[in-house]
Amino acid sequence: MNRTLGVCYYPEHWPETQWADDAARMARLGLTHVRIGEFAWSRLEPRRGAYDFDWLRRAIDTLHGAGLKVVLGTPTATPPKWLVDEMPDMLPVGADGSVRGFGSRRHYDFSHDGYLEECKRITLALARAFGEHPGIAAWQTDNEYDCHNTTLSYSAAARAGFQAWLQRKYQSPDALNRAWGTVFWSMEVADFGEVELPNLTVTEANPAHVMDFRRYASDMVVRFNKAQADIIRAHSPGRDVIHNFMGRTLAFDHFAVGADLDISSWDSYPLGFLEDRSDQNDDWKRQFARAGDPDFQAFHHDLYRATSKGRWWVMEQQPGPVNWAPHNPAPRDGMVRLWSWEAFAHGAETMSYFRWRQAPFAQEQMHAGLLRPDSIEAEGYFEAAQVAKELGELEGELDDKAGLADVAIVFDYPSAWAWEIQPQGREFDYFRLVFDFYRSLRRLGLSVDFVPGDTPSLEGYRLVVIPGLFTWSPALLEAIKAHDGHVLIGPRSGSKTADFAIPQGLPPALPDDLLGVRVARIETLRADTPVPIQGGGTFQFWREYLEVNAETETILSAKDGVPALVAKGNCHYLGGWPDADLLLEILQGLSANAGLSVRELPDEVRLRRHGHHVFAFNYGATPFDLTDLGWSREPLLGSRRLEPSGVAVTQLSDAGY
Amino acid sequence: MNRTLGVCYYPEHWPETQWADDAARMARLGLTHVRIGEFAWSRLEPRRGAYDFDWLRRAIDTLHGAGLKVVLGTPTATPPKWLVDEMPDMLPVGADGSVRGFGSRRHYDFSHDGYLEECKRITLALARAFGEHPGIAAWQTDNEYDCHNTTLSYSAAARAGFQAWLQRKYQSPDALNRAWGTVFWSMEVADFGEVELPNLTVTEANPAHVMDFRRYASDMVVRFNKAQADIIRAHSPGRDVIHNFMGRTLAFDHFAVGADLDISSWDSYPLGFLEDRSDQNDDWKRQFARAGDPDFQAFHHDLYRATSKGRWWVMEQQPGPVNWAPHNPAPRDGMVRLWSWEAFAHGAETMSYFRWRQAPFAQEQMHAGLLRPDSIEAEGYFEAAQVAKELGELEGELDDKAGLADVAIVFDYPSAWAWEIQPQGREFDYFRLVFDFYRSLRRLGLSVDFVPGDTPSLEGYRLVVIPGLFTWSPALLEAIKAHDGHVLIGPRSGSKTADFAIPQGLPPALPDDLLGVRVARIETLRADTPVPIQGGGTFQFWREYLEVNAETETILSAKDGVPALVAKGNCHYLGGWPDADLLLEILQGLSANAGLSVRELPDEVRLRRHGHHVFAFNYGATPFDLTDLGWSREPLLGSRRLEPSGVAVTQLSDAGY
Amino acid sequence: MNRTLGVCYYPEHWPETQWADDAARMARLGLTHVRIGEFAWSRLEPRRGAYDFDWLRRAIDTLHGAGLKVVLGTPTATPPKWLVDEMPDMLPVGADGSVRGFGSRRHYDFSHDGYLEECKRITLALARAFGEHPGIAAWQTDNEYDCHNTTLSYSAAARAGFQAWLQRKYQSPDALNRAWGTVFWSMEVADFGEVELPNLTVTEANPAHVMDFRRYASDMVVRFNKAQADIIRAHSPGRDVIHNFMGRTLAFDHFAVGADLDISSWDSYPLGFLEDRSDQNDDWKRQFARAGDPDFQAFHHDLYRATSKGRWWVMEQQPGPVNWAPHNPAPRDGMVRLWSWEAFAHGAETMSYFRWRQAPFAQEQMHAGLLRPDSIEAEGYFEAAQVAKELGELEGELDDKAGLADVAIVFDYPSAWAWEIQPQGREFDYFRLVFDFYRSLRRLGLSVDFVPGDTPSLEGYRLVVIPGLFTWSPALLEAIKAHDGHVLIGPRSGSKTADFAIPQGLPPALPDDLLGVRVARIETLRADTPVPIQGGGTFQFWREYLEVNAETETILSAKDGVPALVAKGNCHYLGGWPDADLLLEILQGLSANAGLSVRELPDEVRLRRHGHHVFAFNYGATPFDLTDLGWSREPLLGSRRLEPSGVAVTQLSDAGY
Repeated sequence: MNRTLGVCYYPEHWPETQWADDAARMARLGLTHVRIGEFAWSRLEPRRGAYDFDWLRRAIDTLHGAGLKVVLGTPTATPPKWLVDEMPDMLPVGADGSVRGFGSRRHYDFSHDGYLEECKRITLALARAFGEHPGIAAWQTDNEYDCHNTTLSYSAAARAGFQAWLQRKYQSPDALNRAWGTVFWSMEVADFGEVELPNLTVTEANPAHVMDFRRYASDMVVRFNKAQADIIRAHSPGRDVIHNFMGRTLAFDHFAVGADLDISSWDSYPLGFLEDRSDQNDDWKRQFARAGDPDFQAFHHDLYRATSKGRWWVMEQQPGPVNWAPHNPAPRDGMVRLWSWEAFAHGAETMSYFRWRQAPFAQEQMHAGLLRPDSIEAEGYFEAAQVAKELGELEGELDDKAGLADVAIVFDYPSAWAWEIQPQGREFDYFRLVFDFYRSLRRLGLSVDFVPGDTPSLEGYRLVVIPGLFTWSPALLEAIKAHDGHVLIGPRSGSKTADFAIPQGLPPALPDDLLGVRVARIETLRADTPVPIQGGGTFQFWREYLEVNAETETILSAKDGVPALVAKGNCHYLGGWPDADLLLEILQGLSANAGLSVRELPDEVRLRRHGHHVFAFNYGATPFDLTDLGWSREPLLGSRRLEPSGVAVTQLSDAGY
Repeated sequence: MNRTLGVCYYPEHWPETQWADDAARMARLGLTHVRIGEFAWSRLEPRRGAYDFDWLRRAIDTLHGAGLKVVLGTPTATPPKWLVDEMPDMLPVGADGSVRGFGSRRHYDFSHDGYLEECKRITLALARAFGEHPGIAAWQTDNEYDCHNTTLSYSAAARAGFQAWLQRKYQSPDALNRAWGTVFWSMEVADFGEVELPNLTVTEANPAHVMDFRRYASDMVVRFNKAQADIIRAHSPGRDVIHNFMGRTLAFDHFAVGADLDISSWDSYPLGFLEDRSDQNDDWKRQFARAGDPDFQAFHHDLYRATSKGRWWVMEQQPGPVNWAPHNPAPRDGMVRLWSWEAFAHGAETMSYFRWRQAPFAQEQMHAGLLRPDSIEAEGYFEAAQVAKELGELEGELDDKAGLADVAIVFDYPSAWAWEIQPQGREFDYFRLVFDFYRSLRRLGLSVDFVPGDTPSLEGYRLVVIPGLFTWSPALLEAIKAHDGHVLIGPRSGSKTADFAIPQGLPPALPDDLLGVRVARIETLRADTPVPIQGGGTFQFWREYLEVNAETETILSAKDGVPALVAKGNCHYLGGWPDADLLLEILQGLSANAGLSVRELPDEVRLRRHGHHVFAFNYGATPFDLTDLGWSREPLLGSRRLEPSGVAVTQLSDAGY
Repeated sequence: MNRTLGVCYYPEHWPETQWADDAARMARLGLTHVRIGEFAWSRLEPRRGAYDFDWLRRAIDTLHGAGLKVVLGTPTATPPKWLVDEMPDMLPVGADGSVRGFGSRRHYDFSHDGYLEECKRITLALARAFGEHPGIAAWQTDNEYDCHNTTLSYSAAARAGFQAWLQRKYQSPDALNRAWGTVFWSMEVADFGEVELPNLTVTEANPAHVMDFRRYASDMVVRFNKAQADIIRAHSPGRDVIHNFMGRTLAFDHFAVGADLDISSWDSYPLGFLEDRSDQNDDWKRQFARAGDPDFQAFHHDLYRATSKGRWWVMEQQPGPVNWAPHNPAPRDGMVRLWSWEAFAHGAETMSYFRWRQAPFAQEQMHAGLLRPDSIEAEGYFEAAQVAKELGELEGELDDKAGLADVAIVFDYPSAWAWEIQPQGREFDYFRLVFDFYRSLRRLGLSVDFVPGDTPSLEGYRLVVIPGLFTWSPALLEAIKAHDGHVLIGPRSGSKTADFAIPQGLPPALPDDLLGVRVARIETLRADTPVPIQGGGTFQFWREYLEVNAETETILSAKDGVPALVAKGNCHYLGGWPDADLLLEILQGLSANAGLSVRELPDEVRLRRHGHHVFAFNYGATPFDLTDLGWSREPLLGSRRLEPSGVAVTQLSDAGY
C-alpha cells in the first residue's frame, strides 16, 4: 500500500492566477491528494439551472497537471440561497421548534424529499461532468454529516417521513402501540398520522417512541448518502466514494452509512476535541492542551477503519490552532507530525491536512492552514514535509494491512441513542463508557479493533469486550456462543429488547447455558458516592445487583457482598462501571487469561501494532525510554529515547521487540 | 383508626389472566387498598363516546373479590390523542411561548373550558358506572396537579380566563391600575382585554400583575378539582375524594384544593426528592443518598395532614430506585419500612406503595415496584410485608389521632409565589426558609403542625412560628392578638400588602400595641458575606435593619449594633435569616420560655409524637442509643438501640418516656 | 463651574398634594436639579391624541417654584398599551425569534419607522408645550438605551432596515459578497432582499455579516436619539440635551450617540454592577460587596466624559440597596458620599440621585430612594446632605475643568462587537481587556482619559494605550504617527480589516516604519494554562507569536523564546494578555520612560487628578494613611488619615502634594 498525504483546497477562494503556483507547491511538499469543491454550490450553480462548471474544470486540470489526485466533494452541505428561498420548508427545525435558517452551513433537513432530489440533480450534473476526468481519484459525499447536530430535525417533513417509516415498520397502529407500550399513559394512536415527533412534550416522551425516531433519523442520513453514492458509482467508474465523518458524533449509524462507501474518512482535530468533546477533568485537559487526548484520535482511527471494512483516511487533519473550541491553543512542536504518523499506524491510506492556506475571511478565518494567509509556510507545513520525507524513507518497509488487533470492542450506535434517551444516571453516556474501556486496553499496550453490534465477526480475537450494549442482535449472540476467546460483557449490556423494554427474564438476557446471571436491580450514583469493591477500587455512576446461578462463578464482589464480576468459562459479566484503576486491573486479569501480553504504560505513551511492526507515540512533554518496554534494537523511525511528541517504529520479532 | 397499606396497580398494563393472581398476592402481603385507573383514558374511551368500561369493571370485581378496596382515579391527567386533536388549543403553553404537546402526560391547560367539560363528562361517566360499586372505597381526582410545572400556562385560554378573573376581582380597569401601580412604567390599561399574560416581557413584569396571575392559576386548579369532586360526591356517596399531591410543589394553594377533598394524599419519593429538590449541599446529599432527607418526608406529612383537616394518606411510596432524578440510588435496607412507619407516626390512615410490579415498558420502566418485571418479589416487597405484620401486632395500641403538635408553623402558598416573583436575593425561597425553621424544630425533638395563613387556628400551641409571610390576613392578625403562647414572626413577614406593595407604615405591618418594630431597610447577601451576630452565629442571604419602639425589647443584635431579634411580651420578630445553629439557638430559647422540653438530636435521628406515643427514626447508617434521650423502657416496636434505618415506638409516661 | 446635585422624581406616582412639600424638601437638602417625566406616556397621552399635559405643567411649576431646575425626559422608553396594540410589529424580537412583549419597559424596536414617527410626535408635543418653560433646564431623551439588551432586535422591521442599510453601504450585491467573503460556504446573495438577519443559523453566522448587523443596530440607536434631539433643539433653545447611558453597555456606539448630545450622563449603581457585571472573582466581590469595584465607576466617568467632549453628569446615583442584582447589599456608611465626590473628581457637572422616594409599588419597590416609602429620610439622604454642604464649602476652590489626564486609552465600541462575535477564546472580552489596562493604570495612581478610535486626539498625552482594537481608522494611524509620546498597542489590535478579515500583511497591520512586527499565529488558553514570561508573570487567555523586523527591539519574551513585548522607539506592541501584576509592571516601565510619576496603590485606594487638585478615595473598610503617598499638608476636604469610605482633596503643588 502506498501511504499518501493530501490537503483540502478551495480554488474558489483564491484568484485563478494563484492556482498553478499553489498546485506546484503542494506537489513539492510531497502531497499527492487534494480535496476540493464541497462548499461551492453557489459558484457551480449561481441560479437554478445556470451551471458554471468551467472554473472547476480549470481548477481540476491545474491540480491534475501538477500531478495531484483530486477528491471532489458534492456541495450539498451548503445549499445556496436561491434554492432555500424556493423551498423554505427544506430547513431543519430544532427540538425547540425553531427553524434553523440560512447563513452558515448544513441548513437542510435529511427528511426533505424535495431537497434530496436537488442533491441528486447537482450530484448527477457533477458526476456527468467530471466522473471520468483523469484527475478525479475519488469523491466525497456532502461534508460531515451531523456536524452542528443536524441529524435530528423536527420539521413537518420529518414528521411525515417518520409516520411513513413507522407504517412500513409496524404495518398497523396496534403493533406500534404494543411495541411502544403506549397504554402506559394513554399515548395510544389509532392511525400513524396521529404520531407526533417526540419533542416539546410536557415531560419525557416514551423512550420507545424516541428510539424509533432516532433510528428513522439515522436511516434518513443513510438514504441521503446512498442517493449520492449510487449516482457517483454509475458515472464515475473506478473512483472511491468517501465521506468525512466527525469525532464523537453518534447521532447516525456510521456502519450503515459506511456500507455505501468505499472509504470512511474522518476529520481529526485533536486539540479542539479535547477542549470541546472530552469527559476528562481539568487537570487532564491542561496536561494535554497542546497534544490532544492520547486515545481520542486512535479511538476514531480504529472505529472508522471498521465502518468501511478496513479502508479509511483522515480527510481533515488539524495543522495548527483551530477556531471553534472554547480555547484554541497551538499544538506542541511535533504534534502535527505525530498525529499524521498515528493515522498511518492505525492503517490509514491517506492523511489529508485541513487546509492549504488559512482563509482570511468568513467563519474560519482563525483556523490555521499549512500556509498562513500571507502564503508563508506555517508551522504545520514543515511537519507535513517531514512526514512526507519519512514516508518515502519507510516505503516498502511497512505491511499493507494493519492486521487483526489484540482485542475487539463491540461498538453500536443505537446503544448511544438508547442511553442518551434514558441515561438513568446523569453521567451514563455510551461513548464515555466505551472510551473508558478503550483507554484501559491502550494503557495496557493493547491494539483494538471495533466490530459492529449487528453483524460482528469475532473470529481471531482472544478478548472481546461488550460494554453498555442496548440490545442483543441474534448475530452477536450467535457469534459469542461460537467464540472460543474470552468475552467481557456489561455493564448494562443486553438490558433492553429491541422495542426498548426490559427483557422478560431480566438483563443481560443471556442464555443460561452461556452465563447464568440476572440484573435484579440497578442504581445510579453521584460521583461522590461510589461503591467500594473488595480488594480495592470502586464502581462509579452505575451499579447492578447481580443474581447468579449455581454454575456461575463470582470473581469480584462489592464490599456489601453483591457480585461485581461473574463468569462461566470464558464468558464474563461486569455489573458496574469500574473506576479507571479497577477497570485496568480487570482487563489485565482477563488479558492474562486470554494469553495477551500486556504492560502498563504511562498516560502519555501509547503503542499501536501494525502488521509486523509496532509504533510508539509520546503525547507527553518529557522523553520516555522505550527500552523500559523491551525495545532492544534501534527503531526504524525515531529512537528508543522517545522525545516529546516523538514517534518510533520497530519491527516485531518473535521475542517481542 | 385502622392503619392500612395499599398499592398502585395498572390492570391495563397486564394480561387479564394475571389479575386474579396479582390480587391474591396483594391480599396475602397484607395490603388492603389498591389504586387503579388514573392513566387509562385511551382504554376507557378509545374513540369519542365509545366507552369501554367492561375491562375496568372486571378488574374492580377481581380486586374486590380478593378483599381489596379500590381507589379509582379519574384519567384526566392523560387525555387521549383523539381528544387533543379535536381541540389542540387545550394544550398548555410554556413561559417561552412554546406549546407543550401530546406524548407524555399532563398535556392540558387548567384554563381551558372545553377540556374542563370533557373531564366532567368522563368523570360523570365513571362515577355513574362505578360510583356505587361495593369495591370502590375512594376516588382520586386526576394525578399530581402541577407535576412537570403544569399549573402555569400561557395559552390563549389562560389569557382570556385571566382577563375575566381580573374583571370579577377589580370591576374596573382603574381599580386594577391603582392596585398594581401600573402608572410606574406607563403600564396602564383602559380595558381588561388589554391585559397580557406576564411572560415574554422585555424585563421583569409588574410583581402585582404576576401575583394575580399566580392566584388566578391556582384558582384554576381549584376549579378543575372541584368540578370532579362535585360529580363524584353526587354519584358515589360515602366514598372519599382524594388527590395525590407532590413534594415541594407550591404552584397552587393546596389548602384551597384540599378544602374540596376528604383526604389529602401525597406521593413520597425520599431519594428522588433529595437528589432533585433539595437545597442541601453535596455532603448532605452524599450522607443521605440512600435514606432521603430526614425532615423532607415529615414536612410533607405534616403539611398535607393540614390541607384536609387531619385525614391524609401517602398515595405513592417509593419502594426502591426511581427513574427520574439525576441519580437514582437504591434505598438502604430498611428504609422502605422506615418511610412507611414514619407516615403512620405523622397520622397517615393509609400508606400505599408505587407500584405493584415494575413496568418493563414506556417512561417508567426503570422505576422499581414491589415486584420486579419478572414478578419476583423485589426488596420493597419484604419491607412492606414487615410493616403489614407490625401493624397487626400494634393494632389497638396506638391512638387514633396524632393530636396537637408542640409547635405550629404558619404555611402560606401565596408567600411562595410572592418570593419567587421577587426574591430580591438569589437564595430567598419560601420553602427553603420554612424548611430551615421546620428542621431546626425537629432537631430539638419537637413535633410540628402547619396552619394556613388565611384561616389559622393557633389555639393550644405554646409556640407559633411565622417565617416569610407575604401579607397578613385579618384572621391571622386576630389570631395572633388572641394567642397566649409565644409567637416568632419573620424574617420578611408582613412585608407586603395584598396588592404586592410595601405597607404604608413599613413592614412587618404589625399594630404597635402588639410589637413596635419597623423594617427601615433590607439587604440581601452573597452566601460568603454573612452578617455576624453578637454572641455567635450569622444572618445569611437576608437581613433587615429594624427600628424599634421604646417598649420593644432587643434580645439579639448584629455585631454592627442593628437589632436582630426583638420582642414585646410573647411576640417576637426576627430581622434576618439565621444560619442553622443560630436558628436552633433562637428556637431553643423560645421553646424554653414557652415551656416546651427540647433535646438536641443528631442530624440523622428524628422523633415524632403521636397521641400518647413517641416514634423514633434513624435515618443514619450507625446505631443510636435511645437511652441517651431518656427512653428507660423497652419500646413497643424496635429496641432502644436504634439500628440504622431503625424505627422505635414507646409510650409517653408522665415522667417522659 | 457650579457643581450641583439632583434627584429623579415621579410626580405621577404621588398625590399632587405632596408635590410642593417634596419640592421644598429637595431644595432644603441642597438639590438643584430634578429629572421627571421619562416613563409617563400613559399619563401624558392616555388615548391617541388625547394629550393631558396639565398635570405635568403643574408639577414643573411646583418644582420650578421651589427653585429647582427640571430635566424633562421624553417618555419613549415606555410606549403605552394602546400604541402597542395599534402597531404590534413595533415590538422587538429576541435572537431566539420570540417577540418581546408589553408589560415592562423598552418594548420597542429601534428599526421600526412607525414607532419612530410616534416618538417624534410625542417629543414634538412636549417640546412645544414645555420647551421654553423657564423651569426646564435640560431634556433627557428616552431612558437607558440598550438596557435589557434592547439594541439588537430580529424583527421584520430590522430585516428590512438592515437590507436597505446594506444597499446604501455596498450599492451592489457583488460588493457585499466580496466584502463578506460569502463564497466561503456558498452564502452568496444575488439581491439585498436575500440577506437574512444573522440569528437562528445552524452554526455561527459569517462574522462580517454579524458585524454589519451590529453597526446597523448601533446606527438605529443614533437615528432614534437624533430624531428627538433635533426636535428638542428646535423648540427648546438653550436647554441641554442629555441621555442617561448605562454601565458596561457596549451594544451601540456611545460616541456616535454622544455626538448629538450636549451632555452625556450615566446611571451609576456600584453595588449592582459589582454583583451583576463584573469579571472579578468571588473574593473580590466579597471584599467590595458594600463599596463597589474601586475602578468601575471611575471607568465610566472617564468614558462618558469623552462621549460628549467633556460635559457629563451622573443622572442616577445608587442611594442604598437596589433591587435588580442577584444580591443587593446595603452600601457601607459613607459610600454614597464617596461615589458622589468621585463623580465630581472626574469632572461631573451634576450628580443626581435615583430616586427621591422609594416607590412602594410595581417593579422597583425594593429600590432604595433618598426617602423611605414612608417619607422618612433614608441613609442616602444624610450623605447627600453632607455632599451638598461640602460642595458649598469648596465652591470656588476647585478648577472648572478636569484637564488632560496622564494617559489616554483608545476606546472603540466596534471592537467590543467584533470580539463578542469572534472571541476565539472564551474569556476574550473587549471590556474586560480594556478594564484590565484601566485598573492597572489606576493602581499606579494615574488619571486616564478615553479617546475614540475613529476621531482620536492624542495630543498632550505622554502615554497612549490601545488594547484589543478591531481595526485601524486612518485617523488613528495618522495620530499615532504624529504622536511624540509613548504608545502601547495590543494585544489583538489592528488584527482585522474593516470588512472583518485578516489584513493582507497580517496583524497588527502597522506600517513597518512605525513598528515592524507581524502576528504569525495566535492561540487562546484555558485559565489554568497561562504562558510564563521571562522575568516573571504570564500571558493568560490570549497569546500571539510575534515576528519582528531587524530594527524592532524585543523587550520581553516568553520563556519559550517568543517575543512578548516589542518596540521601535516610543511605539510598543504587546503580544498577549498579561496577568494583573505583569501588566502593572509593563505599564510601570512605560510610565517611567514617559516621565510619568507613579506609585503603586493598594486595591482599595484610588486617586484622581482634577485640574490643580488630587482626590483620594478609600473603597476599603480600614483607614489608609495618605502621608504614605507624600501628602504633606492637611487636605482641603477630609484628612490624611483616609477613613473607610473616606474622601480627601488636596492641592497639587510643584513638589507634588
